[in-house]
Amino acid sequence: MKKSVGPNTVLQPHPVLIVGTYGADGKANIMAASWGGICCSKPPCVAVSLREATLTHSNIRTRKAFTVSIPPEKYVKEADFAGVVSGRDVDKFAKAGLTAVKAGSVDAPYVGEFPFALECRLIHEHVLGLHTLFVGEIMDVVADEEVLGEHGLPDIEKVRPLIWGGGGSSNYYGLGARLARAFSAGRDIGEK
Amino acid sequence: MKKSVGPNTVLQPHPVLIVGTYGADGKANIMAASWGGICCSKPPCVAVSLREATLTHSNIRTRKAFTVSIPPEKYVKEADFAGVVSGRDVDKFAKAGLTAVKAGSVDAPYVGEFPFALECRLIHEHVLGLHTLFVGEIMDVVADEEVLGEHGLPDIEKVRPLIWGGGGSSNYYGLGARLARAFSAGRDIGEK
Repeated sequence: MKKSVGPNTVLQPHPVLIVGTYGADGKANIMAASWGGICCSKPPCVAVSLREATLTHSNIRTRKAFTVSIPPEKYVKEADFAGVVSGRDVDKFAKAGLTAVKAGSVDAPYVGEFPFALECRLIHEHVLGLHTLFVGEIMDVVADEEVLGEHGLPDIEKVRPLIWGGGGSSNYYGLGARLARAFSAGRDIGEK
Repeated sequence: MKKSVGPNTVLQPHPVLIVGTYGADGKANIMAASWGGICCSKPPCVAVSLREATLTHSNIRTRKAFTVSIPPEKYVKEADFAGVVSGRDVDKFAKAGLTAVKAGSVDAPYVGEFPFALECRLIHEHVLGLHTLFVGEIMDVVADEEVLGEHGLPDIEKVRPLIWGGGGSSNYYGLGARLARAFSAGRDIGEK
């Protein structure tokens, strides 16, 4: 018998998405967001939800573009920093010692030190309440050669992305053990 | 220097969301989805993107409600099974030996054996392409008492959710080591 714990934003796992944008003044900014994920395969799209109070929210509306860089375990401090201060008060790239690299396909910067990034152009937004959901079409993915795996795509075992626990355990975690192959492990249930 | 690998739905980590719905005929169904995540804090909302061809897509439009159950590591086969067959062909709850429990707050079933579930009413949908993005307001969260942690919410270390690698490594993983406290680990960068 389950217990009701009330409406809450608990979901597991949460990603740690470092959203990169330029302001109207051309200044590069990043922020950490965990409300987001892939939302369409064709065209490939990613959703990121942001509070209207953030500089990134304003920048996306102005520039109609953003990037999503995936922080690896060793940059846990820098990723957390990007979520606890505002780009209105500080140059987060400079303060965290990170490099803003202009995306090749859209008008936004990504984090040069992180293993891969999605380059997105804004195609849809919807104000849900405290957060606005932004959908970006992924125009390109750029990655360090050494993290590529099957199909020439970033391999999670090489990237070692951060995972945020949220809810009842507000900690960052690393990736655990490989458990099973997807689209395969459950096939024998169907054949029973 | 990063390499362009082309537009792709690679993001890390992906969650494994087991979406529960009733059909017009009252039959309970589940499917596995990884295109989704939290998308608003107030009101608490979750986004799940589904292909129009799926039974779940049709059920959500009919019933205006769905649940999201989070599968733990030990149910990796059942979770994968929910993603490889269609509810049009088979009763997935019965075949996988799982229990459909009617949600208390919305017109949809959740998986009784999984540690927690979000109960959602449909508040927004947007056709993006192959996938339709559905946003559900989270009306309640129900959880097994033994997985609750801080703030009375499900604790990821007790839930042990599945993580899908996607992209260059299509495997399921468990949760790894605790690395750092969120909204804390990066504060010393700001104070430098």
